[in-house]
Amino acid sequence: MYKWLITFLMCGLVFVCMPTIADTGSNEEAETPSISKETKECLECHSVYTPGIVEDWLTSRHAMTTPEMAIKKPVLERRISLDQTGISDIEENLRAVVVGCYECHALNSDQHKDNFEHMGHQINIIVSPNDCKVCHPVEVREYSESKKSYALLNLRENSVYAALVETIISLKKVEDGKIIPLQASDATKQETCYGCHGTEIVVTGTTKVTTEFGDYNVPKLANWPNQGVGRINPDGSRGACTSCHPRHSFSIEIARKPYTCSQCHIQPDVPAWDVYKESKHGNIFFSNSREWNWNEVPWKVGRDFKTPTCASCHNSLITTTGNKVILPRTHNFNARLWVRLFGLIYSHPQPRKGDTYNIQNADGLPLPTTFTGDIATEYLIDTEEQNKRQSQMKKLCKSCHSGTWVNLHFEKMDNTIAEVDKMTRASTNLINEAWRQGDADSSNPFDELIEQEWIKQWLFYSNSIRYASAMTGAPDYATFKLGWWELTHNLHKIQSLISNKK
Amino acid sequence: MYKWLITFLMCGLVFVCMPTIADTGSNEEAETPSISKETKECLECHSVYTPGIVEDWLTSRHAMTTPEMAIKKPVLERRISLDQTGISDIEENLRAVVVGCYECHALNSDQHKDNFEHMGHQINIIVSPNDCKVCHPVEVREYSESKKSYALLNLRENSVYAALVETIISLKKVEDGKIIPLQASDATKQETCYGCHGTEIVVTGTTKVTTEFGDYNVPKLANWPNQGVGRINPDGSRGACTSCHPRHSFSIEIARKPYTCSQCHIQPDVPAWDVYKESKHGNIFFSNSREWNWNEVPWKVGRDFKTPTCASCHNSLITTTGNKVILPRTHNFNARLWVRLFGLIYSHPQPRKGDTYNIQNADGLPLPTTFTGDIATEYLIDTEEQNKRQSQMKKLCKSCHSGTWVNLHFEKMDNTIAEVDKMTRASTNLINEAWRQGDADSSNPFDELIEQEWIKQWLFYSNSIRYASAMTGAPDYATFKLGWWELTHNLHKIQSLISNKK
Amino acid sequence: MYKWLITFLMCGLVFVCMPTIADTGSNEEAETPSISKETKECLECHSVYTPGIVEDWLTSRHAMTTPEMAIKKPVLERRISLDQTGISDIEENLRAVVVGCYECHALNSDQHKDNFEHMGHQINIIVSPNDCKVCHPVEVREYSESKKSYALLNLRENSVYAALVETIISLKKVEDGKIIPLQASDATKQETCYGCHGTEIVVTGTTKVTTEFGDYNVPKLANWPNQGVGRINPDGSRGACTSCHPRHSFSIEIARKPYTCSQCHIQPDVPAWDVYKESKHGNIFFSNSREWNWNEVPWKVGRDFKTPTCASCHNSLITTTGNKVILPRTHNFNARLWVRLFGLIYSHPQPRKGDTYNIQNADGLPLPTTFTGDIATEYLIDTEEQNKRQSQMKKLCKSCHSGTWVNLHFEKMDNTIAEVDKMTRASTNLINEAWRQGDADSSNPFDELIEQEWIKQWLFYSNSIRYASAMTGAPDYATFKLGWWELTHNLHKIQSLISNKK
Repeated sequence: MYKWLITFLMCGLVFVCMPTIADTGSNEEAETPSISKETKECLECHSVYTPGIVEDWLTSRHAMTTPEMAIKKPVLERRISLDQTGISDIEENLRAVVVGCYECHALNSDQHKDNFEHMGHQINIIVSPNDCKVCHPVEVREYSESKKSYALLNLRENSVYAALVETIISLKKVEDGKIIPLQASDATKQETCYGCHGTEIVVTGTTKVTTEFGDYNVPKLANWPNQGVGRINPDGSRGACTSCHPRHSFSIEIARKPYTCSQCHIQPDVPAWDVYKESKHGNIFFSNSREWNWNEVPWKVGRDFKTPTCASCHNSLITTTGNKVILPRTHNFNARLWVRLFGLIYSHPQPRKGDTYNIQNADGLPLPTTFTGDIATEYLIDTEEQNKRQSQMKKLCKSCHSGTWVNLHFEKMDNTIAEVDKMTRASTNLINEAWRQGDADSSNPFDELIEQEWIKQWLFYSNSIRYASAMTGAPDYATFKLGWWELTHNLHKIQSLISNKK
Repeated sequence: MYKWLITFLMCGLVFVCMPTIADTGSNEEAETPSISKETKECLECHSVYTPGIVEDWLTSRHAMTTPEMAIKKPVLERRISLDQTGISDIEENLRAVVVGCYECHALNSDQHKDNFEHMGHQINIIVSPNDCKVCHPVEVREYSESKKSYALLNLRENSVYAALVETIISLKKVEDGKIIPLQASDATKQETCYGCHGTEIVVTGTTKVTTEFGDYNVPKLANWPNQGVGRINPDGSRGACTSCHPRHSFSIEIARKPYTCSQCHIQPDVPAWDVYKESKHGNIFFSNSREWNWNEVPWKVGRDFKTPTCASCHNSLITTTGNKVILPRTHNFNARLWVRLFGLIYSHPQPRKGDTYNIQNADGLPLPTTFTGDIATEYLIDTEEQNKRQSQMKKLCKSCHSGTWVNLHFEKMDNTIAEVDKMTRASTNLINEAWRQGDADSSNPFDELIEQEWIKQWLFYSNSIRYASAMTGAPDYATFKLGWWELTHNLHKIQSLISNKK
Repeated sequence: MYKWLITFLMCGLVFVCMPTIADTGSNEEAETPSISKETKECLECHSVYTPGIVEDWLTSRHAMTTPEMAIKKPVLERRISLDQTGISDIEENLRAVVVGCYECHALNSDQHKDNFEHMGHQINIIVSPNDCKVCHPVEVREYSESKKSYALLNLRENSVYAALVETIISLKKVEDGKIIPLQASDATKQETCYGCHGTEIVVTGTTKVTTEFGDYNVPKLANWPNQGVGRINPDGSRGACTSCHPRHSFSIEIARKPYTCSQCHIQPDVPAWDVYKESKHGNIFFSNSREWNWNEVPWKVGRDFKTPTCASCHNSLITTTGNKVILPRTHNFNARLWVRLFGLIYSHPQPRKGDTYNIQNADGLPLPTTFTGDIATEYLIDTEEQNKRQSQMKKLCKSCHSGTWVNLHFEKMDNTIAEVDKMTRASTNLINEAWRQGDADSSNPFDELIEQEWIKQWLFYSNSIRYASAMTGAPDYATFKLGWWELTHNLHKIQSLISNKK
């Protein structure tokens, strides 16, 4: 315990930090928010031992505001989704202090298998959506309904996808010229597929760590570190808010910037970012986004931002300068999507629910279409819902483009979707021929040379063309980079791998 | 008509907007420029219905200046190319108001097939170079002479290129293991090749749109939206100023930033942007360009910008801090180019004229060289003109580099051009062998596997090496990314596809 | 000589420039530093003839400070590595003037083969590390011990690497369907491999240049221009400080930005930059780095920068806000590296010394491992040194992450390294089979189709996965872009090129 005292004396720094908090409070908040006693304790040591975290948090809105202050803002400007009733449900000791270390890392400790005793407090290693929900209940509810929150389960519990994962990332050995697949390791899953989809973090026991303050026992975590969007947390919740609002600034600016989305939505399989970069929207973003108001809520089209980023179309609350709502905020990233463009053999209407591994197509596989393109209609949204979602999306487009412009854009996109689905079908015809002729074996449809060329058609090239069409741009990308050039050229390659060619 | 009144009352916003214009007028312009009565009418509704456009325009120079004010600046600082005589030719009612909605969208209405009656005015949907010419005659004249303005025609009217386009982007089906090309659709052309090259926008009739103000008849456009550089507009003019000066800020900053050019000049076929990113020039641009003066005219080397962007070398007016002109402004993007590095089988002197589809080589094809490299001299600029253009380019290089440095750079580039042309020739020897042996059929030189590997040699790899050499950088790109590695490796691939290998 | 006078009169500009220097001196430096008489002479002409250089220098710290002023700073804030004794060794006339043209370009003239008489002074064309050493002795010493400074020699003097270089970038011709390699030219070496590795700049004579001031004789340089990190300079020194601190701002900001490193450390062979871009660190860098303090010394974690860049991990002096040193500055870029991840067939401990071409493995080749993975232990650092370096690196990680987080990260990385080395081994088994069966000829292991597919396994794909693992991110990159997908798919391709397949 005396060591604790030494640390306290060592940490002169903390006295430097504290005024900073008051200083950085903006004028709009005349009251200086206070820091809880427990968080002050955390800061004393951590400003020396993990200074990067503390400095980052000091610049965050969490460090400058309390739930009570946040709720007083006009509804449109509010960044928490509690209402007046909701806030009275929060424990009293949380309401009037800034959102510091202790306020987040000590919540719901009974549900956290990663909870441990640390300097006299019960601390969770991982803060989960279920904890963030205390102040942000609507965001967490919406998110938990989206496909994103099921990203791990939709991969791991879908037998077809699980086979694809295993085929690609399993270790292989060669004996007598033969390729023998071994098992994919958890560590490799963690830094490849599950890097984006999320891992299941499991507490496997405790481990002793030795520090200058003596030895601790801390929970031993498997499949950690990870910030995948469908992460299963030690409290059982799904998702990681820090995927997009990274620690410990939890910045809305970072989440709104396309760099965040680009970590996973990137070529060759999900080339949203690559297409955006080459679009006129991307051109304007790169050219003058440093002058935009990235932290404003609501986000005013034309005034705060001049061209859409991922967030403007898919989740932000967007208004006119005159505060007329154009689009409401949503953390269900499916909410404005009607058609699914990537990750599957053919495009199709969005699934009704976030847990897509429960879909069953006409061939009995957990996929929304068969290999030949028949759609598992009952698991997918109907035309009415598709139209509703599309008309929501169009509202934003029409902020800067005429109705004619917007309608023609989406007509073109419909044509593209139909064409590239036909191109995929052409390559499926070839692969069926290969299977029929014994040039390949369909028992695992992913593990032979010709099968992998076929995968590229739909997972890389058709995808890319659809994205380029949907996001109003990237003509070169859709032509030469990963588009029609490859789609055509690779069709010839597939054909060349079939023995009885025509 | 009463609906119009309601809108007027609804649009309280417009009163918020108006003072903004005055506020943003810089000190240099003491007089507050006025907005025309017609443009005020436009703004009243559009600030509610297309707020993004209005907000963008409000930040533009067009919103803050009038032709009369613009002409008063010293010649070097002028952003319009009218002289005092020219301005007196402008209709009086345009001279003294800011350049607003009505000033651009109502010009030359008799020439615009996309003209329609809108709220009591005759409005054109598309503003064309011919309209911009009212204030920017020199820019439009120069542009209309450049290859850029012929980008659509040079593709569509050139039988060889047209075949390449059709081969790549046509829909294909597979029957009995055979690949059968169908036709390329207009929609796919629009978002691939013609996305950069431009479409021909055709008015095909009228269409009824239903809005809260009742039903309108608006022109029905085919091949729209599109901002390709060689677009053919409904008034017959070629080009789209908004390709580089996007709507509705028409920003010189955006046009000067390489992000704009990068939309089309990108790998794998025109990797100017990719090479720039990896060059020392790109390194400095990314590191400190946020501190440059992007809106200054003239653009002072070293003071306003520290390293060249596309615009500095190819079109901006560049001076020393002391206003000594280093390079004049040009919107003919060929003006400082002597050798053509991309898009064709072999490099060659720049064409004499912008309409390259009229070239005829020794084999009777509309190409500047034959398949074996013989040059169609009479259609290309002569040595004197080449030297003149190169010495213009060198002037800018010498702003930051010694004469020795610059000369050695261009000597190295000459060597590279010669070497990669020889590498292309080597692959052409192989493809000729394939044609001779019947491994491929030369009737369409682009539609078989081996032919497409040959295309990659000149359209992707040789190109990339030439760009890397010309733009002083990107050694890794020229080695491993899309350069010598691929050029060598793919030569072996082509050889492997020939039946009687040596 | 009278022309010189004319120039003096012409250059009114210089009087504009001079006050600028005083103006830009920050408050901390009350004394206005003086410019030497010689440098003033340089500036008079060069502000007209190479205005870009002069303007750039005017914004540099060199233009605003003198060695005497620089040495007065507290040790942690110092940007020169002279101590009080060291400075007294500097010639008196250098100590009290700013670091201008003459101060650098006239140093050690007797050692410079590129020295020439210019306007009455003896000037060196190239300023080398040996010249920078006058004020920055520690940096130059550290750098000269690193692999970087041997980058040219390690390529050129290593017979295996030299063969790889020659195979890739040599000109080829095709005769009778046969590919015949010719020699790689110096010019092509200069702009490919040696672009990053550096050339040997040789003075081959003198050449006459004609200017408005009459004719000069200037040294004729071969293999110039070049800024490769292992450049051999005309004074015999190795390296180019301007690789990272580009002329003539010599900015610490540019050197700290990853754009600088990215010029060479880029996909497909050294994908550090590509992996960084897709990592959470990169995400934060792109999102808010414009607000960081890029010029602060020391560099305070969390305060001055929020997420690591290349420099933070590999060479900068990093402290807490309270000036506690986390990592010392080093210009030996190996200093915190324990394992080598790229450029060789298998990963292995870092070499003991910078000159790796002197390594000899069990097969007698100048490589740290054999083709089957046996390690040349005696040339590589031992476990103790590996642990020491890793624990240095971990110190920075722990500024923002818990010890558990950091340890698990490096455990995962160890697993990845082992797995991808096994994947490489699997492909080597196939290539050995090909050599055994006569499908390929091992005399040059790099010049046939199947051999080049094998190179891709270790030089591109295994590398990429290791980088993605080491740099905490880029899951999509490690999966589909250049990672496991390619590693698996290409293994099948290699197998398909073997005649007696199993």
